[in-house]
Amino acid sequence: MHQPTKLQDMAQAACATLARLRAEMPRVHCITNAVAQNFTANVLLAVGAVPSMTLSAEEIGSFVTEADALLVNLGTFDAERRQATGIAVKTAAREALPWVLDPVFVDRSPARAEFARTLIARGPKVVRLNAAEFFPLAGAEATPGTLAAFARDNNIVVGLSGEVDIVTDGARRASIENGHPLMARVTAMGCAGSALVAACLAVDEDAVRAAASALVIIGVAGEVAAEKSQGPGSLAAAILDALYNLDAATLRARARVTP
Amino acid sequence: MHQPTKLQDMAQAACATLARLRAEMPRVHCITNAVAQNFTANVLLAVGAVPSMTLSAEEIGSFVTEADALLVNLGTFDAERRQATGIAVKTAAREALPWVLDPVFVDRSPARAEFARTLIARGPKVVRLNAAEFFPLAGAEATPGTLAAFARDNNIVVGLSGEVDIVTDGARRASIENGHPLMARVTAMGCAGSALVAACLAVDEDAVRAAASALVIIGVAGEVAAEKSQGPGSLAAAILDALYNLDAATLRARARVTP
Amino acid sequence: MHQPTKLQDMAQAACATLARLRAEMPRVHCITNAVAQNFTANVLLAVGAVPSMTLSAEEIGSFVTEADALLVNLGTFDAERRQATGIAVKTAAREALPWVLDPVFVDRSPARAEFARTLIARGPKVVRLNAAEFFPLAGAEATPGTLAAFARDNNIVVGLSGEVDIVTDGARRASIENGHPLMARVTAMGCAGSALVAACLAVDEDAVRAAASALVIIGVAGEVAAEKSQGPGSLAAAILDALYNLDAATLRARARVTP
Repeated sequence: MHQPTKLQDMAQAACATLARLRAEMPRVHCITNAVAQNFTANVLLAVGAVPSMTLSAEEIGSFVTEADALLVNLGTFDAERRQATGIAVKTAAREALPWVLDPVFVDRSPARAEFARTLIARGPKVVRLNAAEFFPLAGAEATPGTLAAFARDNNIVVGLSGEVDIVTDGARRASIENGHPLMARVTAMGCAGSALVAACLAVDEDAVRAAASALVIIGVAGEVAAEKSQGPGSLAAAILDALYNLDAATLRARARVTP
Repeated sequence: MHQPTKLQDMAQAACATLARLRAEMPRVHCITNAVAQNFTANVLLAVGAVPSMTLSAEEIGSFVTEADALLVNLGTFDAERRQATGIAVKTAAREALPWVLDPVFVDRSPARAEFARTLIARGPKVVRLNAAEFFPLAGAEATPGTLAAFARDNNIVVGLSGEVDIVTDGARRASIENGHPLMARVTAMGCAGSALVAACLAVDEDAVRAAASALVIIGVAGEVAAEKSQGPGSLAAAILDALYNLDAATLRARARVTP
Repeated sequence: MHQPTKLQDMAQAACATLARLRAEMPRVHCITNAVAQNFTANVLLAVGAVPSMTLSAEEIGSFVTEADALLVNLGTFDAERRQATGIAVKTAAREALPWVLDPVFVDRSPARAEFARTLIARGPKVVRLNAAEFFPLAGAEATPGTLAAFARDNNIVVGLSGEVDIVTDGARRASIENGHPLMARVTAMGCAGSALVAACLAVDEDAVRAAASALVIIGVAGEVAAEKSQGPGSLAAAILDALYNLDAATLRARARVTP
């Protein structure tokens, strides 16, 4: 068991993680929804990571084997993505590859919620979701207490996005107040955030710190971008620019993380 | 039969519809082509609607049941989308959910045209298409007379896009001269317009008024955006900003609707 | 055998090709990956070409028959795209339609590399790839000599992208030094470049000249766009604007092509 890092210096950790993304350029294989694929790839490229998105059963094993992290996002889930997920998760286990589950819209589909529960049992490092998606998985409203219990019970890190993002493994917690309301008007913003969590897991094995770093990075980039944007269209472009240009001073100055 | 609203005050109606979109945030489930999914979701989010795009047979019934309107767009049609459409249209009928058909490229594929004709018989509120797509469905060139006849014969509202958009149910007609030529250089602009028609149907049961409102809204937003754009790339972002920021005064001042 | 055109005046040829794209508006059917579909369509529209992207076995024959060129891009390859490719390539052969192969990520998947080799035997006019993708296909590092041999042996034009792009049929060669490093941070930039090669083949039967023209056009547009961009997000929009606005004087002044 690795020693849990103190979270006092999360802003510093986010800076270090961003530097490692740019230096190591980790490969992130993404099983993600059709709406999110392009924007997710652009977010990963903007921070220096290398995305791939192949889904076919014949090939996904090769891609995951050569990847440094995996994302499984349940948006626009279908038979191809279901089969891909089975192979990818098995490959990730064999290769000791960290992976992230984003259970998009499990509140809209009981079948999807059931599938998400089976996936959580297969060992994602991080489950990133919103409050509406937490309820059908945990059978409880999202509160600091239920989040911690859910994380402990399932031996995962939970990353809840909302006005304040919360990252917890049940023992440690980071609350992140970065971001901007306009981000919710750009489709796939949350999906891309989950992909960034996967990228950070590739360069930082402390999953709480990696997930919190990712959410700080995208939140600060969103704030910087919103200041230069006239609406959601310009924000979508500006956040890619902001991620690409983000420097440690800005990240340190703007990061708002508390335990 | 509801009383048909007079169309004299379409600009006012478009303002009211836009206000309702923002207040009610209707859910719009979209079966749409792979090229259009991301931009369509962003257009819906920009006006306050909530998109979903799942296609799988196991789940689409749940999504449509909880939606407020449905879009069926035939671009990049395939077996998955065909099966999804069957379930979604049946669910929409059961739930009395309004739906829009966008028969993309039926002029390129006889099989697709045949399928579109069977869909028209299943009761979309609105069929939104261009002149090239009208011909194989109606067996006639698009003229005010053939549009009206086609609308009456099929008990639908036709929304024809072109230099002048025409919306008619066979009795009433709105001619809309908004929009900008550069919009045709952004892929999925028409597809996103059809999704906006679906969103407007969710908040206005008068389908002529809803379809005309949608086309006025996106046309005016396109004009505003074109004035700030250097080409199709900046237009695609600027139209999302314009939709997000569109106010009633601008809409009233720019709307060009005649019977 | 047509007479090979001298490449001394490639800048002039690129201008002529761009003018023909805008005048003739060729239809380009694209079998391409899910990440690239939207951006590829927008690149084609920006230069005046008309994209279509249908994949279904029932319909793709109709689309290819009515197209002027075909792109087969192996990103996110799956059963549907494999079947589509079989039909599309057969149709292209029957219709004497030029087509381009972009063997994305064949370095990551042996199965994909094997499939790419069978496709090369079926007569694409141009294979556009990067150095990492060349190796598994040619069994050799990409050098001027191996590129020429591979082109001759397979009776194709090779278009290698990199810091310097190289286009060769084994006898003639064009080296293109246009482009900007930031282009590599926008997903699907290379994929869209291959689609532009297909569009150019539709208006210029000299495949070396067409491929080189396409790479000059997108490279120059990328340079113009990079000067106006703050990062990859603004670049993605700005390159569409630049393609739309590109004039012959700029193209001639910036084209850097040597034999």
